[in-house]
Amino acid sequence: MIKATTDIFGIIGDPIEHSLSPILQNWFFQQFALDAVYVAFHVYPKELKNAISGLHSMNIKGLNVTLPHKAGVVDYCGIRSREVELLNVANTLSLSETELSAHVTDSHGFKKSLGQKRVEFKNSDICMLGAGGAARSILFALAELEPAGVFVYNRTREKAEQLVQEGRKSFGLLNARSISKSELNDVIHSCRIVINTTSVGMYPNIHDCPVDENAPFSDGHFVYDLIYNPLTTRFLRIAKEKGAAVQNGLDMLIFQGLESLRIWKQADLQLNSKHLTECRSLLETQLYE
Amino acid sequence: MIKATTDIFGIIGDPIEHSLSPILQNWFFQQFALDAVYVAFHVYPKELKNAISGLHSMNIKGLNVTLPHKAGVVDYCGIRSREVELLNVANTLSLSETELSAHVTDSHGFKKSLGQKRVEFKNSDICMLGAGGAARSILFALAELEPAGVFVYNRTREKAEQLVQEGRKSFGLLNARSISKSELNDVIHSCRIVINTTSVGMYPNIHDCPVDENAPFSDGHFVYDLIYNPLTTRFLRIAKEKGAAVQNGLDMLIFQGLESLRIWKQADLQLNSKHLTECRSLLETQLYE
Repeated sequence: MIKATTDIFGIIGDPIEHSLSPILQNWFFQQFALDAVYVAFHVYPKELKNAISGLHSMNIKGLNVTLPHKAGVVDYCGIRSREVELLNVANTLSLSETELSAHVTDSHGFKKSLGQKRVEFKNSDICMLGAGGAARSILFALAELEPAGVFVYNRTREKAEQLVQEGRKSFGLLNARSISKSELNDVIHSCRIVINTTSVGMYPNIHDCPVDENAPFSDGHFVYDLIYNPLTTRFLRIAKEKGAAVQNGLDMLIFQGLESLRIWKQADLQLNSKHLTECRSLLETQLYE
Repeated sequence: MIKATTDIFGIIGDPIEHSLSPILQNWFFQQFALDAVYVAFHVYPKELKNAISGLHSMNIKGLNVTLPHKAGVVDYCGIRSREVELLNVANTLSLSETELSAHVTDSHGFKKSLGQKRVEFKNSDICMLGAGGAARSILFALAELEPAGVFVYNRTREKAEQLVQEGRKSFGLLNARSISKSELNDVIHSCRIVINTTSVGMYPNIHDCPVDENAPFSDGHFVYDLIYNPLTTRFLRIAKEKGAAVQNGLDMLIFQGLESLRIWKQADLQLNSKHLTECRSLLETQLYE
């Protein structure tokens, strides 16, 4: 029951109505028996400064941040994690005494979501599709997983090359390079792991696909799509039909949310596999496909 | 379930941790099947301006306001009800398009809480204890109930006299006058209705009483205490033991909250007596005595 003593957390974004974070975090609060509630605040870009200032004044304990505010919030935070400094975006703000601290939990969430598959990244070649904000977080995560090589494909190759340069310079990922459309199928063929970080194939455009219908997936591949709506994108379906192991973005969503909560509560909260299954089921019922 | 589409309402105050409004309003939301959630924001006086500005920016649909902000918020509201203009306090803010509107629901809540007893106020003499903020709201309500006379007792008589003057001038309550301590028992004796608007006897000071132990209550009296914690104050117990009909402040709390919700939702929401009983029971379990 929500009382006057209940701690308030939330998410800011524009648009915000499709966020699953309220369902996810309120479920966490229940699981971990926390007297807290999580709500979604629709904040327009021109209102960001006022909203952040209100966050302090209204005794809100922590915030998640989604598009288009991930970069904008960083300026208002006196304390920034190393990852925030590097990526210059934040998705988790925490109020410590009078100062706001900025964190970003995407790459942590990605790594946690891999589970047993994590070990397969070491010394493997990886093909990453996309070069936007999500791709940056994944590239940052990959740097820690010590792959053999990372091949970045993006429709606009310039952006891929830019990201690769950042990966080399800032993340220490020296074995990254951008590839052209004509190289893509050969690279997919030779890579053990393929990751889609683009929004191609996301609801409502569920017939779109970031690779060719005849992309050379095989049973040796691990294919990851950051999209979770639909749970099985056309991209994942093609890969699965050719025998690849596949994973959607739902676990990453769960684990990056859990990491936000750990930051806010300064506590080592863990999900066992039974809870993880429950949590997935809950979120799946809320997808709007 | 709280989703990203759930409307956010709340209360601001300092202190805030004892407010029953979150429990009350979230219960209303459930009863009326509203996709809304109500939380308590602890706002310090020096943070009021930022908080109000944040209210706009964070898309919060409505706020209740409690001490010490009831007067302070009025300045920030472009639209003010007639009652707010008169009393210069507000306890309910509503966001209409870009403008904040200010309302005050206390006197409405008081009148609604009277139920069948309301008719007894007309042409009766009424003794009111106290001359603070709550007394002003009650005096405003009394003006509409057409009593024969209103006698205001306050420890500091000056304050009572000031309030009486305001009642005459602003509320049209020409038959109000202040009384001294030495007149109090005679006035109680001759009045049909006695109302305590002070906090004397409120938890934790439950042994305190705003009248003498031997106050001349009788079975002809209707005695009302705005306090609801404890449910039966020493004041009400003394009156009850002498046969008076008594009422505590719980229904006023419920009805002023309902009025806030009606303002926010622009809807004629009604509580039937079964629901009212349920609501009382819920609140009673939350009292901290």
